[in-house]
Amino acid sequence: DSTDDVILAGYGRFGQIIGRLLMAQGYNLTILDHSPGQVELVRRFGNKVYYGDAARRDLLEAAGANEAKLLVIAVDEADKTLDIIHMAQQHFPHLKILARAIDRSHAYAIMQTKIDGLRRETFDSALHLGVDALQILGVTQEDAQHAGKLFAQHDEENMRKLAEVWGDDKQYGIAVQKGLQELKQVLKEDAKDRAKQAKYEH
Amino acid sequence: DSTDDVILAGYGRFGQIIGRLLMAQGYNLTILDHSPGQVELVRRFGNKVYYGDAARRDLLEAAGANEAKLLVIAVDEADKTLDIIHMAQQHFPHLKILARAIDRSHAYAIMQTKIDGLRRETFDSALHLGVDALQILGVTQEDAQHAGKLFAQHDEENMRKLAEVWGDDKQYGIAVQKGLQELKQVLKEDAKDRAKQAKYEH
Repeated sequence: DSTDDVILAGYGRFGQIIGRLLMAQGYNLTILDHSPGQVELVRRFGNKVYYGDAARRDLLEAAGANEAKLLVIAVDEADKTLDIIHMAQQHFPHLKILARAIDRSHAYAIMQTKIDGLRRETFDSALHLGVDALQILGVTQEDAQHAGKLFAQHDEENMRKLAEVWGDDKQYGIAVQKGLQELKQVLKEDAKDRAKQAKYEH
Repeated sequence: DSTDDVILAGYGRFGQIIGRLLMAQGYNLTILDHSPGQVELVRRFGNKVYYGDAARRDLLEAAGANEAKLLVIAVDEADKTLDIIHMAQQHFPHLKILARAIDRSHAYAIMQTKIDGLRRETFDSALHLGVDALQILGVTQEDAQHAGKLFAQHDEENMRKLAEVWGDDKQYGIAVQKGLQELKQVLKEDAKDRAKQAKYEH
């Protein structure tokens, strides 16, 4: 049948987390993976599994791409992700698409396709380990989390600016340095504001 | 001199995020990396850089391990991370240690060393992409974020239980299934509670 809401391409350590979250929320998944290793448990939970290359139009169609609402791409190969995006945009234009980006330059390439969202695969965990570090260094939990949030917001804005000069090494290098200076400024002003606020509160 | 608070081992895409966050907060870093590629910008910002194998005692000592407060291990090789942890625990027992885990089984191995914290490198981004997916599927931002938070809490508890049966494939498989059933139950009860609460509020 074709009532599945979500097609999940890639069921390694990244896709499994997404799959488990969506399954636990009651969604039926159709999972595409190139190998049977990871997916047996999923099948036991009543989900459908297709083996093969998720960039193949016939496989996506068999998986219900004409009826599905959302395609989540969680494969671990940068080029394959872009292949799947291009194929899905061409043949199943109604599909919403989310993707895992391997690194910064892969994220720039994905941003150019204008899909509905992406996450860089190690960014969030790295940021959280950095927030953990701040706390070990004596920053309060609240302040550390706030600094992490500001950093993420700033980084996302910065990514959009950097995407424009990506490919021009000199301009890109200048923009990276400028971004870090701006970030320092943002965090410094924020620390001042918070100190001022604390003064009024206590 | 030896006033650096933090030694950061590994300066690829993971270490760079941590490094930029800590630098922006005004911390001096000493960075260890096996190659000069990534670290030139860091050096320009006045931080110290050592090239080589961070699992070597003499390199860590040169980097100030006797005086530093915190060692963050952000290398991308599972075995190297464990080598660095063992060496640091033996020779610099005062050091607090945080580490990047590659996957679930690496996380179990790191948990056995009893360091101060770890993050699985793709877990947080995968979870956030899952939360993005829930929102595209029609869940409100608040509910999606709440489901993500519950999932993460449950997963962390579950990791501790699974670490105990890790290595026994049959017991592990049973525990994984049990964990997912429990997670479904947690999310179902939570959804009920929230529905009830919404009823009283409106």
